[in-house]
Amino acid sequence: MPFDISDDFLDNLSELITLDKSKEITALFAEVHFADIAEVLDEVDFDEAIYIIKLLDSEKTSEILTELDEDIREKILENLSAQEIADEVGEMDSDDAADIIGELSVERQNRVISALEDDELAADIKELLSYEENTAGALMAKELVKVYETWTVAGCMRRIRGQAKEVTRVHSIYVVDKEEKLVGRLSLKDLIIAKSDQKIAEIAKDKVDAVNVSEDDEEIAKIMAKYDLEAIPVVDDNHVLLGRITIDDIVDVIRDEADKDYQMAAGFSQDVEVNDSIWEITKARLPWLILALFGGFISVSVLGSFDSAMDQYPELFFFTPLIAAMAGNVGVQSSAIIVQGLANDSLKGSLFRRLLKEILQGLLNGAVLAGLLLSAGMLFLGFPLNLGFTVAASLVSVIIIASIVGTFIPIILAKKGIDPALATGPFITTSNDILGILIYFTIAQLVLGF
Amino acid sequence: MPFDISDDFLDNLSELITLDKSKEITALFAEVHFADIAEVLDEVDFDEAIYIIKLLDSEKTSEILTELDEDIREKILENLSAQEIADEVGEMDSDDAADIIGELSVERQNRVISALEDDELAADIKELLSYEENTAGALMAKELVKVYETWTVAGCMRRIRGQAKEVTRVHSIYVVDKEEKLVGRLSLKDLIIAKSDQKIAEIAKDKVDAVNVSEDDEEIAKIMAKYDLEAIPVVDDNHVLLGRITIDDIVDVIRDEADKDYQMAAGFSQDVEVNDSIWEITKARLPWLILALFGGFISVSVLGSFDSAMDQYPELFFFTPLIAAMAGNVGVQSSAIIVQGLANDSLKGSLFRRLLKEILQGLLNGAVLAGLLLSAGMLFLGFPLNLGFTVAASLVSVIIIASIVGTFIPIILAKKGIDPALATGPFITTSNDILGILIYFTIAQLVLGF
Repeated sequence: MPFDISDDFLDNLSELITLDKSKEITALFAEVHFADIAEVLDEVDFDEAIYIIKLLDSEKTSEILTELDEDIREKILENLSAQEIADEVGEMDSDDAADIIGELSVERQNRVISALEDDELAADIKELLSYEENTAGALMAKELVKVYETWTVAGCMRRIRGQAKEVTRVHSIYVVDKEEKLVGRLSLKDLIIAKSDQKIAEIAKDKVDAVNVSEDDEEIAKIMAKYDLEAIPVVDDNHVLLGRITIDDIVDVIRDEADKDYQMAAGFSQDVEVNDSIWEITKARLPWLILALFGGFISVSVLGSFDSAMDQYPELFFFTPLIAAMAGNVGVQSSAIIVQGLANDSLKGSLFRRLLKEILQGLLNGAVLAGLLLSAGMLFLGFPLNLGFTVAASLVSVIIIASIVGTFIPIILAKKGIDPALATGPFITTSNDILGILIYFTIAQLVLGF
Repeated sequence: MPFDISDDFLDNLSELITLDKSKEITALFAEVHFADIAEVLDEVDFDEAIYIIKLLDSEKTSEILTELDEDIREKILENLSAQEIADEVGEMDSDDAADIIGELSVERQNRVISALEDDELAADIKELLSYEENTAGALMAKELVKVYETWTVAGCMRRIRGQAKEVTRVHSIYVVDKEEKLVGRLSLKDLIIAKSDQKIAEIAKDKVDAVNVSEDDEEIAKIMAKYDLEAIPVVDDNHVLLGRITIDDIVDVIRDEADKDYQMAAGFSQDVEVNDSIWEITKARLPWLILALFGGFISVSVLGSFDSAMDQYPELFFFTPLIAAMAGNVGVQSSAIIVQGLANDSLKGSLFRRLLKEILQGLLNGAVLAGLLLSAGMLFLGFPLNLGFTVAASLVSVIIIASIVGTFIPIILAKKGIDPALATGPFITTSNDILGILIYFTIAQLVLGF
């Protein structure tokens, strides 16, 4: 079902733009969904994108701008006047409008807002821009359908006909008292089923979930997912109805959050996409690699300090990458499971029980792996038994310590208000590498006595 | 806003259960959302959970069962008779009912379905169970509001009053022709705004997105997120309307998919949760650790084969963990960005350009890191210059090769129909460890000639 952007389509489009055949281009896009046109604009040359944006009417381009990749949108907005941008955002819902205006410089923001024809939208956008990022206020839209508890069903139907035209999707009708405080909600279905002379207060559900305007967006995502909500009203500290958040915005929050955690675990210091420039990707990759390099220096020093073992037990040094790799892998596993547990609030039990569990868990994994190492490894690689036992004992110790480090670093970060996902990436691998090598050679020194 | 399960609440509940105070317990839960009761049941002892399930009425418990953790639900269902389960699922929407019945043995499935009072629901469940997992058919619900294109607005309003009672959320009203083929849709809002003598065909939107019943659920998630849909109708090959999928089910698909990718990257071979038993977690962790151990054996052998270097250049061996760690980190970065690009269909350009980009990218990162290694490392660690250059040159080569491997393994896996996320975990780290060490010593041998 999704529209497929073929090379033929793009070639055809390019030719039409070169020949300035505006009617044909408009016709070409007439039946195409704005999300698909946004993808076309991601593909074509920048001049062509500007041409198309200026050609299509603002009802369509406003939707396209909302869907566009932020980098490309930024460049397009630079090429539009304040009045042109105002015409575009004038067609948008207040939340999308505020998001896009928020990307401009403060000086351009003011010019665009002054150029808006609709004073109410201008006020709404100003309000939305005033809320902090990643809060309910920054996420919500001002558009909603609101009725007073004293109205009748018939009066309500008449009045919401007007309001509903402004609101893309109705979901719920919010019921407020005379002080604009949220007191209940009802669905269009409830209205249709009700008798026309009933009072709204009689048919409204008085239990209505709402979030405070300063609530964190990830928390809202959890609430909406948990209670299967498709929209949630936003209120201020006095429970006055301010706006509503719809599930499509929350889907974006969930996807962004998952992407962020995934990228942190993979060792990116900022949000990157596969088609970003080499320079942007390098900027995101280098910080963690530099950290890993310095971690590497430490392991070089640790190994250097044990160089007296080299004459007698050169094989010890062959096992360092194995020990370091196991420490790294085990650490990432432990931290990933904790990060997920923290993310969905399912981490239970005391820290002591958690510690005990990790030790047992490390012992179990370590025993299996040490057994394999001893049997298969020693048989085939033919190393002396005392060396084999040293490596095996180190492996078990390293696995237990790496599990504990992997478990508690994210817990500590979370307690300090730092995103625990930070702990799953090169940070854990690097510190466990060093720790693993140190433990390994210390045990070897104790056992073999060099 | 979410209900907080305090220790006091749990203690109080436990006591009430011991004293068999059923009235008080019902009162305690009267105002609690079923998703919160499900969380309480996750916390209490199993016997207490069974007691609560049997006490509360099936309208509430059916919702609770839907929200419950799968492990606990399984145990509870084992303690209910086929008739008791039928009473529970009889209250559910067809998709939830089919999900829960699908967890039972085939023999119990049949007994529960025969025990259902509602023949239509029984038929719906049988149909839903017949579709393959992770397809539109398995995800959809049969409940929807359907009207015929020949009806008038007034007739339509009258008739959907009946249908709407069965459907939790209306979203869209689907318009079908006399052969039950989907021909359009309209919203309740459209109906309310329309004149009562208009024909449905006049006011319906004839462009309606739909997915085929065999469509993959992740693909549906992409479509619904892209087009901001809150529900999508499901049709068969003849475009006959079969059911609909709502956004709340898709939110679960998106979250599950993100969790799966994250866990794969962290080196789990199956889905685990932080509160799973040590045994379950070990089962999920060990396979990748064993793979990493065998990879470690290979690196031991590779290092062993270069042992002739040890007399002359012992320091070479101190750098192996550093080289291996950099290879691992770079490989994971490269594969993670490709996996995300593949997941959101944003990977563009030819493979040759991608290769070129990775080489340039590797050169850039490698040059910076090699420069750091040479300047800081050599200055402070005081190794001879020829050794320093060997390590630096190896580092650049290893970073480039690791980037290429990290980029192309997921692309190749995806082409072969294997989940590319598999490539981000210990698989990439382990193979890049070995490759890195091999490249490092080969270059060292060429430069230093041992």
